Formats: sequence, C-alpha cells, structure tokens
Amino acid sequence: MKEFIIIGHKAVTAPFSLNDLPGAAGRMDILCRCVNASLFLSHDLRRDVRVYLVLKGGAHPMLIRFDGAAVRYLSPDERSAASLIKKALEKQAQGFWTESMPGVSIKKGDLGDLLDELDRKITYLREDGPDIRVKPLDAGPDLLFVLGDHLGLTDDEEKIIADHEHMIVSVGPLSLHADHCIVLLHNEMDRVEKCI
Amino acid sequence: MKEFIIIGHKAVTAPFSLNDLPGAAGRMDILCRCVNASLFLSHDLRRDVRVYLVLKGGAHPMLIRFDGAAVRYLSPDERSAASLIKKALEKQAQGFWTESMPGVSIKKGDLGDLLDELDRKITYLREDGPDIRVKPLDAGPDLLFVLGDHLGLTDDEEKIIADHEHMIVSVGPLSLHADHCIVLLHNEMDRVEKCI
Repeated sequence: MKEFIIIGHKAVTAPFSLNDLPGAAGRMDILCRCVNASLFLSHDLRRDVRVYLVLKGGAHPMLIRFDGAAVRYLSPDERSAASLIKKALEKQAQGFWTESMPGVSIKKGDLGDLLDELDRKITYLREDGPDIRVKPLDAGPDLLFVLGDHLGLTDDEEKIIADHEHMIVSVGPLSLHADHCIVLLHNEMDRVEKCI
Repeated sequence: MKEFIIIGHKAVTAPFSLNDLPGAAGRMDILCRCVNASLFLSHDLRRDVRVYLVLKGGAHPMLIRFDGAAVRYLSPDERSAASLIKKALEKQAQGFWTESMPGVSIKKGDLGDLLDELDRKITYLREDGPDIRVKPLDAGPDLLFVLGDHLGLTDDEEKIIADHEHMIVSVGPLSLHADHCIVLLHNEMDRVEKCI
C-alpha cells in the first residue's frame, strides 16, 4: 500500500461551495489535485494507493481518507474530488474513521494522530532534500509520503515528523506543486516495479 | 520556448458552464489540467512555455494559446483556466490570433494549421514510444510536444504528425493522463537544464 498524506493548512473543515475551491474553501483545489495525482491512471485507478488529507483551516483539524481500492463516484476533475470531500465534511466526524461514501472516510485528528495510527517510516518531501534519483526511494510497496501544500510544513509539523523514523527527499531541481511531486514519485515507483 | 499542444476531441468551441467541465464542456477539465501542468511552478509560472489547446468538439475546430511570458489572471485551479478559455471562446475568432485576455489568444484552426504555423520538429507522446530515459529528449530549449486527451490521437491526426519531422516518446511504463505526462516531461527537461 502506497500512502500519501497532504496537509492543507487553510482547508476548511465545514461543507463549502464547489464554485470557489481556492478562496472560500481554503485552497481545497490543491488537495483535490493531489487526490487526482495519487489515484488516477489513464482510464483506471491506482488501487494500491490511499490518500490522506489533513484539513487544518477550521477550529479542529480533520482527516479525510480516499482508498483507491474502494473509492467510487470519483472522476479526475477537481470538482469531483471536492464533492466527495464536502460530503465527508457533512458527516458528524468522530475519533474513528467513518465512511461517508464508498472509499471515502473522515475522522477527527491532526497530522500527529495520523502518523501514530499508520506507524511506519515516513518519506517527507522537501525541496532541499536529496534527489530521488541520487538517493533512491526505499524498496518495497509500502511507502508513506508526507507533502505540504503551498505553505510547506510548519516548524511544529516538522517536529512531529522528526519524532518518527523518516527520510527526506526531493523530486527535482525546481519548486513544484504537491500534485506534480506526487506524479513524479509515482513514476519513480512505477519504474522500479516494472524494472525499467 | 517549450511548447505543448493538447488535443481535446470533445472540447466545446462555444462558451460553456464552469460548473460542468467534464460533461457539457466536453472534458474541458483535461485541457485545464494540462494548462496547469505546463505553466505552473510553486509560487511561479514557467515563462518559457506556451500551451496550445485544440478544441474539436464543435462544428469548426478552434485553437487557444496560453503564453507563460504574458499570461495574467491565471490561478492553478481548473476553474481559473476554464474561465480564461471561456472568455477566449466569447471572442469572434478569426484566421489569425486574437488576444482575449493578457497572454491568452484564440484562432480558428485545427492541428494541421497549428503545426504548419509552428513549423518545427514534433515530440509526440505515445504510450508505445521509447522511454525518455532510454531515448532522451532532444537537447535545447525549443521542444514542441503533442499530446492527446483521453481518446489519444485519431489515425488522421497521426497522419498529420507523420507529415512533419517528429520523434515518438513515452514517459514511463503505465498509461497516464496528459497532464501527468507534461509534469514528467518538464521534470526531465528541468534536470537537463540544471545538469542533475
């Protein structure tokens, strides 16, 4: 299982209008594009992937999970992912995962809670990390990636990561959007799996 | 100047609702994501890039050009690119480029007209082409890429490409969305330019 955690520092935790994802919904567009980049192949889904969104733009942070093996009603466009996130936020979130739609679940919690739950080595994407073509990703199918949104990670979030086993990597010479980083990570893993 | 041509076989050529890009607008969401992938860095634009969209879902095909050096009012979300495409389609398109908004222009025409105008070697993305890590992209900053949407290229479009100097490449072992391919192409060119 490949897992991606994306932190949305401004992303709202209450239902929002689908017509203003960048503004009123707190850059929810970034998270929607990350869902797309994580899960979609051409005419297919990556069923061995889970995406976790950390929504931090409300009074209490929320976690939303998309499971590639179970998700339905998801199309590649931003509005489609946003619609499923909105439906999850309409649920009364608890301290455990509640499924709002097939393959989409919500839970109260922050980055630290999620990392404790997943409890494995983190691959943290940071611009100044060693390049994945110089320091290759760990072998095996079970990688857990953490990426920030347009604001990167805060010092507090970096401390949470530092408390877990982790490695830091980058995906190229320029500063890229999180969803573009995910595309590059997948490509690197695809090449290892297919031995090319 | 790096240039990307993306063919939208179903993309409408009349103004459309921003609330249904995949449906009524004919998979306009794909083209919007390609604009994003071609032009956006984190907190910056790729100013050495032009994107051409070929809209073929109307009675007469239309060409829309986004120029990274001149574009304004473009945000990374799909709706933002769609809004600029819609504004271009509200113009009375001619047989020459007409600017509808800064850095966004429209012209009547099809793939063949555009390739004749640009008049240089094409790099055509096709799944069965040699991998860019095996057959590297041509050196130099002036590459012209052609990518299809979810329908790939038709036989007629492939014949048009065959009439021009071209090479065929792929970006990895799996079948990917056009915008994901663009991210991978940029990364490969970024690495060559930065010598890493």
